[in-house]
Amino acid sequence: MPITTVGLDADDTLWHNETIFRLTQARFLELVRDHADEPTTQARLAEVERRNLRLYGYGIKGFTLSMLETAMELCDGEAPAHIVREILAAGREMIAHPVETLPGVDEALAELAERYRLILITKGDLLDQERKLAASGLGDLFAAVEIVSEKDRGTYDRVFTRHGTGPVEAVMAGNSMKSDVLPALEAGAWAVHIPYAVTWAHELADAPDGHARYGALEMIAELPAWIGDRRQA
Amino acid sequence: MPITTVGLDADDTLWHNETIFRLTQARFLELVRDHADEPTTQARLAEVERRNLRLYGYGIKGFTLSMLETAMELCDGEAPAHIVREILAAGREMIAHPVETLPGVDEALAELAERYRLILITKGDLLDQERKLAASGLGDLFAAVEIVSEKDRGTYDRVFTRHGTGPVEAVMAGNSMKSDVLPALEAGAWAVHIPYAVTWAHELADAPDGHARYGALEMIAELPAWIGDRRQA
Repeated sequence: MPITTVGLDADDTLWHNETIFRLTQARFLELVRDHADEPTTQARLAEVERRNLRLYGYGIKGFTLSMLETAMELCDGEAPAHIVREILAAGREMIAHPVETLPGVDEALAELAERYRLILITKGDLLDQERKLAASGLGDLFAAVEIVSEKDRGTYDRVFTRHGTGPVEAVMAGNSMKSDVLPALEAGAWAVHIPYAVTWAHELADAPDGHARYGALEMIAELPAWIGDRRQA
Repeated sequence: MPITTVGLDADDTLWHNETIFRLTQARFLELVRDHADEPTTQARLAEVERRNLRLYGYGIKGFTLSMLETAMELCDGEAPAHIVREILAAGREMIAHPVETLPGVDEALAELAERYRLILITKGDLLDQERKLAASGLGDLFAAVEIVSEKDRGTYDRVFTRHGTGPVEAVMAGNSMKSDVLPALEAGAWAVHIPYAVTWAHELADAPDGHARYGALEMIAELPAWIGDRRQA
């Protein structure tokens, strides 16, 4: 079975992302500590984020607005101006944060790009993801970039058909079991889970049970060899 | 010369958008009136929006964050909590605002879709634009949807090549001279300006001077006939 196309997730697969959210979240907990204890703040922020996901989607702007709403709720609608200012500043700093590729990414992608058509498939703010891709220096390795609002079976079917030779001859690799692995398998593609140190609660899911096209790797450096083995099989 | 493909802008070409921003802006002016007069507020908001465009891009979330920053600046960093709450609520209401297609859009698009490949080409928040397209009921008429972070010559070249038979056999129609008309002409496509009642200051530009592939229409209802005339020419 030939493999012609490799789809790659971006945030926490190619570069750090969740860590930056966690650092900002820690700053937020500190900011509102006079108004609520940490578990209360964490639970409320998670609830507001979940409520807003449908409206705001994924990304820094939506997260910033969710922090502001959470602060208002925790302060009974009377959040002090300095807290609002700090949250706005934290959001701007997240957007301006330098892009740091994960270990082994540059080498693995250079090797993969020689043999396969690479497609970046990612959720998040359009502008923000384009900016990160440009800053990463990896942009030229990708034959196509698809920034999508949801990653489901139909997404992978459409993207691998449009930019490759269909999902059956494609591999999807990423850190999210829920968004990268399971729907890609459903679409008929190969899928490789490469976990990141921390995972956003909304992206957690169980591994597929004994699926022939599923793989789990510790580092992206192992991906070229894994795909090579599948091609020969 | 055959015309195979019609690109259409979304906001203020297919449905109302700028009007909703203007209404929210009017509400914002009212909100901060105890802190600054209208011209001052308008000038400051425009300045903050321009400064943030590179960071936040186009869309409601970025506009909401810009209103919050402007309020902070106008209140010397001490914006009262009720103003912050009202701005957050105004942003959420904008996102939840029903989509209202402009007069003649449904009929014109149904007619165009019978003869040409229709492509929606729009800036703005990914999730927000997808939501509006779904709510408009027009989604099935489009062969492709491209939500882009910038509309320049390269954008039209790429999109009309990927989804059609190249820019030379394509028409772009939209309300923005700067984003829809001029770069599409540069790419070698036909381009039709259909102005909306109000135009965002950042989108203003002069009409092209005597360009053979340029047209100006008052209503989208005139578009099918305009394209038909060009095909026969």
